Amino acid sequence: MSSFLDSLKWNRDGLVAVIVQHVDTGEVLMQAYADRAAICETLQTRMATFYSRSRAGRWCKGETSGHFIHVTSVHPDCDRDSIIYMGNPIGPACHTGATSCWFSSVELSSSEGVSEVGQHASRDQAPLSTFLALERTIQQRRAESGAGGKSSWTAKLLKDPELLCKKIREEASELCQTLEDKEGPERAASEAADLLYHSLVLLNLQGAPVSSVLKVLRGRFGVSGIDEKASRKAK
Amino acid sequence: MSSFLDSLKWNRDGLVAVIVQHVDTGEVLMQAYADRAAICETLQTRMATFYSRSRAGRWCKGETSGHFIHVTSVHPDCDRDSIIYMGNPIGPACHTGATSCWFSSVELSSSEGVSEVGQHASRDQAPLSTFLALERTIQQRRAESGAGGKSSWTAKLLKDPELLCKKIREEASELCQTLEDKEGPERAASEAADLLYHSLVLLNLQGAPVSSVLKVLRGRFGVSGIDEKASRKAK
Ligand SMILES: [Zn+2]
Ligand SMILES: [Zn+2]
Ligand SMILES: [Zn+2]
Ligand SMILES: [Zn+2]
Ligand SMILES: [Zn+2]
Ligand SMILES: [Zn+2]
Ligand SMILES: [Zn+2]
Ligand SMILES: [Zn+2]
Ligand SMILES: [Zn+2]
Repeated sequence: MSSFLDSLKWNRDGLVAVIVQHVDTGEVLMQAYADRAAICETLQTRMATFYSRSRAGRWCKGETSGHFIHVTSVHPDCDRDSIIYMGNPIGPACHTGATSCWFSSVELSSSEGVSEVGQHASRDQAPLSTFLALERTIQQRRAESGAGGKSSWTAKLLKDPELLCKKIREEASELCQTLEDKEGPERAASEAADLLYHSLVLLNLQGAPVSSVLKVLRGRFGVSGIDEKASRKAK
Repeated sequence: MSSFLDSLKWNRDGLVAVIVQHVDTGEVLMQAYADRAAICETLQTRMATFYSRSRAGRWCKGETSGHFIHVTSVHPDCDRDSIIYMGNPIGPACHTGATSCWFSSVELSSSEGVSEVGQHASRDQAPLSTFLALERTIQQRRAESGAGGKSSWTAKLLKDPELLCKKIREEASELCQTLEDKEGPERAASEAADLLYHSLVLLNLQGAPVSSVLKVLRGRFGVSGIDEKASRKAK
């Protein structure tokens, strides 16, 4: 343990920055600092542990709230002063009750200067990468269409399961055709995007969050078990 | 601008932590610090800008290397001492030439203590969330099968495009059936996982990275343009 810990570049308070990232979704859940003892404890217990200024000592997240974060891997950065804990949170990561500590965004508009939007109760301004942002957009379309709002293509699909299923089968076929006809990577990416989008609409209709699909994938294909499990179910 | 900047909780050096995250893949690209001027410049120029200790001043990433990061949104955390820049990198984010600053991982094995693995040239120990980790696993299976290695289900699919396409059409149909037969969220997630996995194998065969699919999705469905563009192409 000591040679790894010796290699880290502690700041003048004896700390490194720690970023906690959700192992399935890639969301950044929280950012804090860790001292030598906290990193050591995290590696041993596999529970995200930090240095708390207010407690002046080690702080295992969840020890009072029960909202632990199981750490699946630990990664130092190129110059060894910033660590990523990849992990699986039990409950909300933020003390406000939000999924993650980021739930607002700041925009610079030319006329009005800076405006900040977003509340921790909703996730509509949280920093989401494209896959999760698309899921959020579909949720928003559903909420609008329920309120008799815009009639968008997404809203149309949400109201017509038969059309949606027809499209999913069609887009799967178009994706296959890019391989069968050797249409190249750009066409493949375009058809995969079509298939993904329509699949996300179906998942929304079924009440299945994208994170649940990712969790299934990690369980089924994760790390070492990928081939055994995949071949077992392929009949 | 000033009221937002006044609300941030600067440390005793007048800095906040900044995490840069890839807008499409969710990968954490780099972590640095920013002072008031750097945040201000980032909001105005939409280029990721930091405070550099060595330069003792503002540092716009890419100004010497050309590897700028276009910032698509800016997010403060719950207690306002840590900022996420969501962004789109031009070229590698790390000065080592790696895609991101994280490319090694640390394991605590009971017998040997701590071991660290990973080089910046390869991405095989980078902290990837499930979707990207699955893509990496498929790449590894392909490399092994090329070397006459394991005969896994993934390797079998990679060698048999006809079987792969048959499976993709079949899994799409199974996903649709979960909706048609109202089988519920767990079955939907399970079938969506099957469909995603087989689609990723096809993308690998076509040389289309997952990031290119996500880029298409952001372009097509991103932010405000989702419905127009989706309905335009639905014929
Ligand atoms: Zn709590
Ligand atoms: Zn660093
Ligand atoms: Zn928080
Ligand atoms: Zn079509
Ligand atoms: Zn299509
Ligand atoms: Zn904070
Ligand atoms: Zn770096
Ligand atoms: Zn099947
Ligand atoms: Zn299936």
